[in-house]
Amino acid sequence: MKKIQLLGATGSIGKQALEIIEEFREQFSLQAVSARNSVKTVLEILSRHEVEMVSMAKKHEETIKRAYPEVAFYALEEDGLETIANTENDTVLLNALVGSVGLPPTLRAIERGKDVLLANKETLVVGGPLIREALETSNSSLIPIDSEHAALRECLRGSDIDDVERLVITASGGSFRNLAKKDLENVTQEDALKHPNWSMGAKITIDSATMMNKVFEIIEAHYLFDMPYEKIEAVLHKESVLHGLVQFNDGNVLAHLGPSDMRIPILSAMQGSKRMPFPTLFDLATLGTLHFEPIDTERYSLFDLGLAVAKQGGLHVVTLNAANEVAVQLFLEEKISFLEIESLIKKALNHYTNDNHLTLEKILEHDRNVRAYVRNFV
Amino acid sequence: MKKIQLLGATGSIGKQALEIIEEFREQFSLQAVSARNSVKTVLEILSRHEVEMVSMAKKHEETIKRAYPEVAFYALEEDGLETIANTENDTVLLNALVGSVGLPPTLRAIERGKDVLLANKETLVVGGPLIREALETSNSSLIPIDSEHAALRECLRGSDIDDVERLVITASGGSFRNLAKKDLENVTQEDALKHPNWSMGAKITIDSATMMNKVFEIIEAHYLFDMPYEKIEAVLHKESVLHGLVQFNDGNVLAHLGPSDMRIPILSAMQGSKRMPFPTLFDLATLGTLHFEPIDTERYSLFDLGLAVAKQGGLHVVTLNAANEVAVQLFLEEKISFLEIESLIKKALNHYTNDNHLTLEKILEHDRNVRAYVRNFV
Repeated sequence: MKKIQLLGATGSIGKQALEIIEEFREQFSLQAVSARNSVKTVLEILSRHEVEMVSMAKKHEETIKRAYPEVAFYALEEDGLETIANTENDTVLLNALVGSVGLPPTLRAIERGKDVLLANKETLVVGGPLIREALETSNSSLIPIDSEHAALRECLRGSDIDDVERLVITASGGSFRNLAKKDLENVTQEDALKHPNWSMGAKITIDSATMMNKVFEIIEAHYLFDMPYEKIEAVLHKESVLHGLVQFNDGNVLAHLGPSDMRIPILSAMQGSKRMPFPTLFDLATLGTLHFEPIDTERYSLFDLGLAVAKQGGLHVVTLNAANEVAVQLFLEEKISFLEIESLIKKALNHYTNDNHLTLEKILEHDRNVRAYVRNFV
Repeated sequence: MKKIQLLGATGSIGKQALEIIEEFREQFSLQAVSARNSVKTVLEILSRHEVEMVSMAKKHEETIKRAYPEVAFYALEEDGLETIANTENDTVLLNALVGSVGLPPTLRAIERGKDVLLANKETLVVGGPLIREALETSNSSLIPIDSEHAALRECLRGSDIDDVERLVITASGGSFRNLAKKDLENVTQEDALKHPNWSMGAKITIDSATMMNKVFEIIEAHYLFDMPYEKIEAVLHKESVLHGLVQFNDGNVLAHLGPSDMRIPILSAMQGSKRMPFPTLFDLATLGTLHFEPIDTERYSLFDLGLAVAKQGGLHVVTLNAANEVAVQLFLEEKISFLEIESLIKKALNHYTNDNHLTLEKILEHDRNVRAYVRNFV
């Protein structure tokens, strides 16, 4: 029985992770959950699982304790996520948080020698160097849940990472892929949230439309697989059938395909090396046509900008991520236009100087500063 | 240093295997070669490699012995191939023969505990049950060189064969894929030999146009991976970029892609588990479009017929293979039309009753009988 600590239990990945845990009740149990404010959903979860620990905003403590007095409650405001990540070694941490708030608990879990199943991109985007450093002195495995990285991990099964010539991930192009750059001026929040292939959270759906999501995924791949940026590539692939591909140095090329169903990478990360039967539909014969093309970097101008920042590394990447996170939020709140996401990010990057000596404190402080700076513009 | 015994050294696969051996002279050496009549090519090979054993038609013995008196010569007519296969254990047998003549040396090598790198389809097509039986009491590995099976083997790296839901191989559709069935009446040998994607031997190029090649490959996959026919599928894929695909029971799907270059599966089979760097070109971003569709079994009527025979098993499969081999030869000699290949195969299948108790002797005798029977029709 694998005991799961699920951070971000009420988001898109969190909900699907719960589906998997409930589908495989013999193999998995839920030991801890976190959510910010979705009290109703958390109470439902607690009614179905024997959860030992809960972390939420402090104001929900009384509600939770009244209904489940035996459950330990840790306030988010008092490092609740890190407290959960720091407990007993026979659990695994499934980090489905959104945003840089995901970094500290991942770090803590790795330091504790706990395996981390990672759906939180920002852990590696803003804290990649710290995570790699922590992994070097830890027995814990960092297992990706992001579909592209889970795809690459499957392609790498039974192979040596040193034999890799190139890692390739695919990009759907997002909600506005059929629009020219000039047509992006007046697109609405509602249109932006209609992703053609995947049903995902709001933030990542907007990041997909700007192609910033692919920048983050390239950074993730860089730190996850310890692979230089020159060997990582993203390719436009409208159908989202082929998620990732590995070219080996002997001419063999392996690709991962499948339906756009996040439960597959979630189960893959949770199950370990022994596959657990999970019926899904896939039929190569009826796929029809798959398209591949290079990413048009004039159309997706944030892609080149983001990659350049990624290659510089350091606090500049934190600036990129924080400015993007706030700008996307402002767009979702209808306070800025779609194209202003990019201009806000550029303003932030121009305002701050880079620093390649990262510490967790420095990252978190800079993250707060950049957010405040970008919010000030509107 | 891996010592290679190369049977069928002057055919398409044989030549490319020699290229690989010469490219990786530190890793591989050529210990034995066979060819029927290409004396000039064999003398060239002997001038470049320190070969210990040669097998050819008896009439070439003097020529070879005069030029290379230190080389041991074994006549094909006197079981020369089996003699080579039967020698010392520190060699591996690369079987690049064409036709059922490839079965006895494969069997002998497996009984001797020698690894066999198999490009000879007929070994498994007509002798599958014998090969599986021999493998059960032998330490030898049977490693496919056929591109589709090499693809499946790569997809299976690091995974358990019991977790496989389905094996899928692709078919290009062959030289006449853009013609309707009615247009096949008067196609020529010359047209038939123009394969759109692969440069291969004549026999397999015709088998590709009739889709019989895919039947043989499904039979091969059945015996190679010990997989029921219900779990093996072929899909039409014009570009020949995706060669094989494995669907696992946990929803993960891995595919093997790459250029149409047989040196990749040849090297993959020869190198063992450690990959050897071999620069090849592959670029997902510039692939453009890949098409997939079910095989039209009315258009490719031999496909369903062949599969039905495969599922019956036994001597009927030998009939299918031998009748096809002679019919293709007759077509190449311009003695029958393209569509008569199918009618000759049907005649042979109707003429013989099935027998599921196979022995090597029974197979070889039946093979000779069917060939004579089919040849009698023209």
